[in-house]
Amino acid sequence: MLHFANDYTQGACQEILDAIVKTNFENLSGYGADKYCESAKAKIRKACEVENADVYFLIGGTQTNAVVINSMLQSYEGVIAAETGHISVHEAGAIELTGHKVLTLPHHNGKINVNEVKGYLQTFYADKNHEHMVFPGMVYISHPTEYGTLYTKNELTEISEICKKYKIPLFLDGARLAYGLMAKDMDVTLPDIARLCDVFYFGGTKAGALLGEAVIFTKNNTPKNFVTRIKQHGALLAKGRLLGVQFDTLFSNDLYKRIGKYTVNLSEKLKNILHKKNYRFYLESPTNQQFIIIENIKMEELAKKVSFSFWEKYDEKHTVIRLATSWATTEKDLNELEKLL
Amino acid sequence: MLHFANDYTQGACQEILDAIVKTNFENLSGYGADKYCESAKAKIRKACEVENADVYFLIGGTQTNAVVINSMLQSYEGVIAAETGHISVHEAGAIELTGHKVLTLPHHNGKINVNEVKGYLQTFYADKNHEHMVFPGMVYISHPTEYGTLYTKNELTEISEICKKYKIPLFLDGARLAYGLMAKDMDVTLPDIARLCDVFYFGGTKAGALLGEAVIFTKNNTPKNFVTRIKQHGALLAKGRLLGVQFDTLFSNDLYKRIGKYTVNLSEKLKNILHKKNYRFYLESPTNQQFIIIENIKMEELAKKVSFSFWEKYDEKHTVIRLATSWATTEKDLNELEKLL
Amino acid sequence: MLHFANDYTQGACQEILDAIVKTNFENLSGYGADKYCESAKAKIRKACEVENADVYFLIGGTQTNAVVINSMLQSYEGVIAAETGHISVHEAGAIELTGHKVLTLPHHNGKINVNEVKGYLQTFYADKNHEHMVFPGMVYISHPTEYGTLYTKNELTEISEICKKYKIPLFLDGARLAYGLMAKDMDVTLPDIARLCDVFYFGGTKAGALLGEAVIFTKNNTPKNFVTRIKQHGALLAKGRLLGVQFDTLFSNDLYKRIGKYTVNLSEKLKNILHKKNYRFYLESPTNQQFIIIENIKMEELAKKVSFSFWEKYDEKHTVIRLATSWATTEKDLNELEKLL
Amino acid sequence: MLHFANDYTQGACQEILDAIVKTNFENLSGYGADKYCESAKAKIRKACEVENADVYFLIGGTQTNAVVINSMLQSYEGVIAAETGHISVHEAGAIELTGHKVLTLPHHNGKINVNEVKGYLQTFYADKNHEHMVFPGMVYISHPTEYGTLYTKNELTEISEICKKYKIPLFLDGARLAYGLMAKDMDVTLPDIARLCDVFYFGGTKAGALLGEAVIFTKNNTPKNFVTRIKQHGALLAKGRLLGVQFDTLFSNDLYKRIGKYTVNLSEKLKNILHKKNYRFYLESPTNQQFIIIENIKMEELAKKVSFSFWEKYDEKHTVIRLATSWATTEKDLNELEKLL
Repeated sequence: MLHFANDYTQGACQEILDAIVKTNFENLSGYGADKYCESAKAKIRKACEVENADVYFLIGGTQTNAVVINSMLQSYEGVIAAETGHISVHEAGAIELTGHKVLTLPHHNGKINVNEVKGYLQTFYADKNHEHMVFPGMVYISHPTEYGTLYTKNELTEISEICKKYKIPLFLDGARLAYGLMAKDMDVTLPDIARLCDVFYFGGTKAGALLGEAVIFTKNNTPKNFVTRIKQHGALLAKGRLLGVQFDTLFSNDLYKRIGKYTVNLSEKLKNILHKKNYRFYLESPTNQQFIIIENIKMEELAKKVSFSFWEKYDEKHTVIRLATSWATTEKDLNELEKLL
Repeated sequence: MLHFANDYTQGACQEILDAIVKTNFENLSGYGADKYCESAKAKIRKACEVENADVYFLIGGTQTNAVVINSMLQSYEGVIAAETGHISVHEAGAIELTGHKVLTLPHHNGKINVNEVKGYLQTFYADKNHEHMVFPGMVYISHPTEYGTLYTKNELTEISEICKKYKIPLFLDGARLAYGLMAKDMDVTLPDIARLCDVFYFGGTKAGALLGEAVIFTKNNTPKNFVTRIKQHGALLAKGRLLGVQFDTLFSNDLYKRIGKYTVNLSEKLKNILHKKNYRFYLESPTNQQFIIIENIKMEELAKKVSFSFWEKYDEKHTVIRLATSWATTEKDLNELEKLL
Repeated sequence: MLHFANDYTQGACQEILDAIVKTNFENLSGYGADKYCESAKAKIRKACEVENADVYFLIGGTQTNAVVINSMLQSYEGVIAAETGHISVHEAGAIELTGHKVLTLPHHNGKINVNEVKGYLQTFYADKNHEHMVFPGMVYISHPTEYGTLYTKNELTEISEICKKYKIPLFLDGARLAYGLMAKDMDVTLPDIARLCDVFYFGGTKAGALLGEAVIFTKNNTPKNFVTRIKQHGALLAKGRLLGVQFDTLFSNDLYKRIGKYTVNLSEKLKNILHKKNYRFYLESPTNQQFIIIENIKMEELAKKVSFSFWEKYDEKHTVIRLATSWATTEKDLNELEKLL
Repeated sequence: MLHFANDYTQGACQEILDAIVKTNFENLSGYGADKYCESAKAKIRKACEVENADVYFLIGGTQTNAVVINSMLQSYEGVIAAETGHISVHEAGAIELTGHKVLTLPHHNGKINVNEVKGYLQTFYADKNHEHMVFPGMVYISHPTEYGTLYTKNELTEISEICKKYKIPLFLDGARLAYGLMAKDMDVTLPDIARLCDVFYFGGTKAGALLGEAVIFTKNNTPKNFVTRIKQHGALLAKGRLLGVQFDTLFSNDLYKRIGKYTVNLSEKLKNILHKKNYRFYLESPTNQQFIIIENIKMEELAKKVSFSFWEKYDEKHTVIRLATSWATTEKDLNELEKLL
C-alpha cells in the first residue's frame, strides 16, 4: 500500500525520534519548565526575529485553537473565520464549548477575502442593533488553508491592517506552516508572519513531530496567567520535555525548513505526474496537498493499492480526492504511484 | 408621535393589567408554585389539546431559547436554524454561551426549506469525518419568523417528519405566535403546532403581557429536573405569580385570539394603505410586521412624526424599514399614518 | 393563614403598583432605553453619592450574580464566598455554568471573616503550585447575609482593603439591602457600600417590587459592552420600563427607606414576642429574618395557621425555622401570631 | 542531584521507548483507529475481566477528568469529591470550565468516607429546596489518592453500593493505579475496580509512559458519540498510535505490574530508611509517595542534593515534604539518599 492519505501516518521523523531517545532518561522538571523547552523557545524567537515573543507548547491543533481563542476573546465576542476553516467545521464545536461563536465568511479556495472581512466589520458597527449581536473579536486564518492554499504577503498585510484598525487580533493557524513557508515562489516568511499576526502557531504534528504545536504571541499580548489557562483546558502536558525536545530539534539545523522543502518538492512532482496523466484538478495547491476529480471506477481501482483521502462527492460519476505528501513520502512512492495512476 | 416601531412599546394590555392589580395582594407561593400558574397551565394544555403537555413559564425569548436548547442537546450537538433566525443573529451568542453551535441554513423570507434541512442531515451522516463535526441535534424555527412570515401546515408537517426520521426534536420559537395563529388564511392551529413540534413557546411579551414566555413540551419529553435547569440559567422568577396571572388571563375568554386577530387586521389595513400609496414592499407579511423600501428623503421626513424600525440599507438612496402593529395600535393611529405617508 | 414564610409572597407594594399602572400605556423604548430607567439611575447615583456610578437593571438575584461574576472574572478565576453564600448553595450551579468556581470559606453567622479572606489569599500566592489552581478573582459577600446578619462598617472596610491590596473586586449581593440599611444601630450607609465595594446590587424583588435588581458599578469599572453581556445571559428585559418605573419609585420619597424601616421594626417586635414566649433562638438577626429552634410537635401545630420556612433539622425533636417580615406584614399579623405562639 | 520530587521526571521506561521506536515508521491510521490501539484495548479488557468494556485513550489526567465528568453529568449536576481531590484543587478549574460544580467532602488521609457520602446524598434529597441546588450526579475518588493512600475493598464496595442506590456513577481516577494495585497487602484488584466502578482510568504518564491515560467504561455506559466529545474537548490525539503502542506495551508481559511492584518496593525501603533515621511522618503511604515533617534547616540542606516536593508549611520551623519513587528510581539512589538524610 502507498500512503498519500495524509501527513501524519508515521510517527516522528528520524532526527526527532533520535532526540527523544537521546534525552529520555534525563531527569527534568515537568510542565514545560525544562531546558529543552527553554532552548526551543529561544530558537523560535530567533527564527521569528521577535526578541520578546512569548512561546508556549501545546499538544494538538483543536486544543490550541480553543485555548488561544478562549483566552483572547471576551465572552460575548466571536471569531471571524472562513466557512471552511478548521474551527468552523472539523473541531466538533470546540470553540463553541468555550462559549464563542465562529462568525463565518465565504471561502475562496479556503481563504477569506480582505474586503469581505472589512465589509463584515463595517456592517456590524453600522448596525444599530449590534449590541444584541456577537461582537467580532478576532480574525482566524489558516495558512496553509485546509485546501493547501496560501495567503500572499500582500493579502496578509491587508488583513493585518484591517485587524489593527478595528483593534482585534489576527490569529494564524499554522498546523502546516512548515509546508507553507517552503512553498515555491512563496514570499511570506516566518518573520513576516510574526510581524503581521498577533498570535499564531507553528504545527509540529504534521511536520515530523509525534505531537505538538508551538503558540507564539508576538506583541507582548500574552493573556495573563496563560499557563493556568492551558491547565484549565486540560492542555498542559506533564512531561512537557516531549514538546521541548521536539521543537528544539525542529528549529535546529534548519530541520523544519528541510522537511518543508522536501515535502513541497515531492508535491510539485506529484502535481506534474497528475498533469502528465491528464487528471483534472479540483484545486492545485502550492503546498503538500493536491485535490483531483477522479472517476469513481478509477478511484475504486486505485484504492486497492493507494491510500488517499475522500474529500467530497463531485457528481454522480466523479469524486474529489486528496493526495498528500509528507516528510515520510519517498521518491520511490511517487514512482510507484505514477505507474498506478 | 405615532408608534409603529415594534410591538412592545406599551406595558400590558388592559385585561392583563387588571388581573395583575386584582391579584397583587394575595399571598402566594414563589417560583411558580401558585394557583395562577396551575390554572394557566391547565388552560394552555387544553388549548393545545395535549392533556399531558408540560408547561413552564420563563421571562424572555433569548433566555427561553437558551434554556430549552441547552437542556435538550448533548454538549457536542448544535441546532439547525435559518441564518436569519433570532438565535443566529440577535441573541448576542446566548446559545454559544451554553456551548452549542448554531448550524445555519439559507433563509427564504425568514424560513428554512425542508429539502435543505433534509440535505443537511443527509450530507452530515454521509460525511466520513462527521465524528469530528458538530452533530445536528435539533431544528429551530421561528413562527412567525423574524420577517413576519409563516410556515404552512404542509411545510411544518414535512419538517416535523424529517426531525422524527432523524430523531431530533423540532423546536418552534413562538415569540409572536399569537399573531401567527390569527393570520388571514392561515391553516396552522395551536393543536397543530403542539402535535408537530416537540417543544415550542408561546410568547407573552409581544402579545400584551409585561413579560413572559410559556414553554410547552408536548411529547412527555421534558428534560429531567427542568426547574433546576431554569434556576441554573438564572431564569426562575421569584414572584412566578406574575407569569401565571398573565398567561391565565391570556388564555381566558380567548384574549390571545382577540389580541392576535385585532393586531393582524390592523396590519392588513396597513398593507392596504401602503399599497394604495404605492410603496414598494421588501416583504409583505401575513402577520403584524410590514417591510417597505423607502426613499431616504421620505424616510427622514416620516421619522419626525412616526417611529418605525430601521431594517437595513437597500441602496444609496433607499432603506428598508419595518412598520409593526400591536394590541396597542389604534385605527386612529392608522388614519393619521395614512395622512403622513 | 398568617404569612411569615418569606418576603416575596405578595406582588408589588402599593406605590410601585400605582406607578406601574399609571405609566402602563406610555409608549417607551425597549431594553432599558426609556426615561424611567434614566431617572431611576440618576436617583440611585445620588443616593450612592457617586456621580459617575454606572447602573443597570436586571431581573433576579441568581441571574444578577451570574452576569456580574462572569463579566468581571477571567475564565480561570473563581469567587471567594461564604460556604453559606447564596451563590455557593442555592443557585443550582449558575456560577459554575458560566465556568467559574466558588471558593468557599467558613461562615460565621453567614459572614466571612476578614482574616480568613486574608489567609486564603496569602496561602494561595505562597503555594508554589498555584499556577495549577483556580485564582481567587473576586470576593462575594451578601449583606444582609442569608441569615439576616450584617457586616459592620469596620468589617466591610477591612475586607475592602484586603481586596484592594490583592487587586480583586469586592462584590456585595444586596438582595435584601433595603432591610440591611435600615437595621437598628446599623452604621453602614448606602454611600459607605458604594465607596467600599467595586460593584453591588440593590434588590427590588424582596423590597416591594414585582421583580428587579439594580447593579451598581462604582469605580468606573463596568465591564466593556455590559449590555451585550446581559443580553448574552438572556437577562435583558424587552420592556425594561418595568424595571425603570419600579426603581424610580423605590428611590423616590424615601420609599425604600420607609419599607426597610417598617419591615425591620416589625422584625424587632417579632423578636420581642419570641423572647417573651421563651423561644430559643438559633440566630437573632438585626434585619427581617428570625431563626428559632422549635419543638417538632409545636411546629406542626403552628403550621396549620402560620406559614414559615423550614430551615434545617436541629435534632430528633427540634427544627430550625425562619420567620420573615416584609413590607406586606401588618401589626395585626404580629398580634395574631403572638396568640398562636 | 537525586530525584525524588515526583514520578514523571524521566521520559518513557525502556520497554515503552523501544516499542515507540520499533513501530515509528509504520504507516497507521490516525485518531486511534490503528492496530496498536485495538490490541491495547483487548488486553485491558482482559486484564479487567470485562469482555465488553469500552476503552479510550486520552493524553493527561486533568483532560481525562474533564472529558469523563462533563460527558456523564447533566448540566445541573456536580461531582462529589474529597476536598483534597485533584479535581477539587489542582486542575485550575477544569471541571468548572465545563459547567460543573465540585461538591467537596472532608478528606481522611485523602479519602472520602462512605458515611459522609451517604449523609450528603440523604441530606440533599431531604432538603425541601434541593431543586435550587446542584444535584450530586457522580462520585469521584482517586485511588491512590493525592496522599498515596488506598481504599480497601470493603470501602470501595460500600461506596459503590451507595452510588448504585442513588443511581449515580462511581468514577475512579487511577492516575497512579499501577502503584495502587501493587501495594503491599492490598486486596483491591483491577477486576475489582472494573466491577465496582462505572468508569475509571488507568494512568500511563506516571507509570512509565511518555503520556496517556486509558479510560474504561465497564457497564455498557459509554456516553453517546464519545469520540466526538473527546474531539470537542481538544483531547483527540492525531497520532493516536502513540497511546496505543504505549498501553499495548504496558499491558504486555505484566509490564505495569512489574513497574508497580518495583516502585512500591522501593517506596517501602524508603519508608524504612526514613523510620530508621527517625523522621516524623506526616502520612505513611502504602504506595509510591511518602510525606514527612522536616525541620526547615534540614530541608534546605537536603535541597542542595535531593529534589523533593514542597507539600505545605507545617509550623514556623517545620515543613511537610513529599518524596516519591518511580520506575526510574534505583537502589543506588536510595542508598545515596540514606547517606544524606
